[in-house]
Amino acid sequence: MSSDVQWLTAEEQRVWRRWLTLNARLSAALHKELQDDAGLSMPDFEVLVHLTDSPEGRLRVTDLARLLQWERSRVSHHVTRMERRRLVQRVECAEDGRGAFIVITPQGRAAIEQAAPGHVKTVRRLVFDALSPEDLDAFATIIEKALAQLDNQPAGFTA
Amino acid sequence: MSSDVQWLTAEEQRVWRRWLTLNARLSAALHKELQDDAGLSMPDFEVLVHLTDSPEGRLRVTDLARLLQWERSRVSHHVTRMERRRLVQRVECAEDGRGAFIVITPQGRAAIEQAAPGHVKTVRRLVFDALSPEDLDAFATIIEKALAQLDNQPAGFTA
Repeated sequence: MSSDVQWLTAEEQRVWRRWLTLNARLSAALHKELQDDAGLSMPDFEVLVHLTDSPEGRLRVTDLARLLQWERSRVSHHVTRMERRRLVQRVECAEDGRGAFIVITPQGRAAIEQAAPGHVKTVRRLVFDALSPEDLDAFATIIEKALAQLDNQPAGFTA
Repeated sequence: MSSDVQWLTAEEQRVWRRWLTLNARLSAALHKELQDDAGLSMPDFEVLVHLTDSPEGRLRVTDLARLLQWERSRVSHHVTRMERRRLVQRVECAEDGRGAFIVITPQGRAAIEQAAPGHVKTVRRLVFDALSPEDLDAFATIIEKALAQLDNQPAGFTA
């Protein structure tokens, strides 16, 4: 590989690898919990969370894509699959030409209400129970620094 | 929703949401970089990293699944798609009945070598450049606490 690249230090590389491992393990555990409790995948759950958080439980594909940080095509395909399971519904908006709204259905609300208690319990048990108040503060600081760094990238470099 | 659930505190919930946002944004940025540089997706890259790290560049599906924290079926499907692009190859193992090895091909090695410098540069720029040495230490501690917490769950609860 190129020798003029500034590689990560041994500690940075270790932290990065462990971070990826943590995210992969958490995501697998949370996915399993959601499947067992409510037949939802993590992506299903994330879509439903954003719809539940929105006024009238509805969002346009573009806004959902931005909130999820997915490409629009991925959102469209995923919403189609969720629509077949009656968790969400596409509703055309006659007022303007800005495309359909994705709306959470009563079945979608029932699914997220069924999933939420176990999900929260698992997040608490797997993450927050392990952290002291000082850890939580430090973690919040680190996450905000990284997010600010993302915001400060040249346009077009990051989503 | 149930009222007997111990919900996350406002700060915990905020940290959790911001963490998910950070992961989604980092993953989108890293994915874009890998696509532009070497035509790889993040999952492609992760598979190639684990194969590169293994003696003789090969792993069984079971071991790859454990390292990636994916289900075996996802590994199989993904490997099939990578095999079509000649990044990896399935090699049957005559010695025992434990199934095929997934082996990185010369094309797979070329792809990861092409992708690695840009990937590392992006990880450095988006994450580590934002963190002080103290942040890095605190981050490492938090990650290890959470991973230890995952290791201490009852069998079957987590992957």
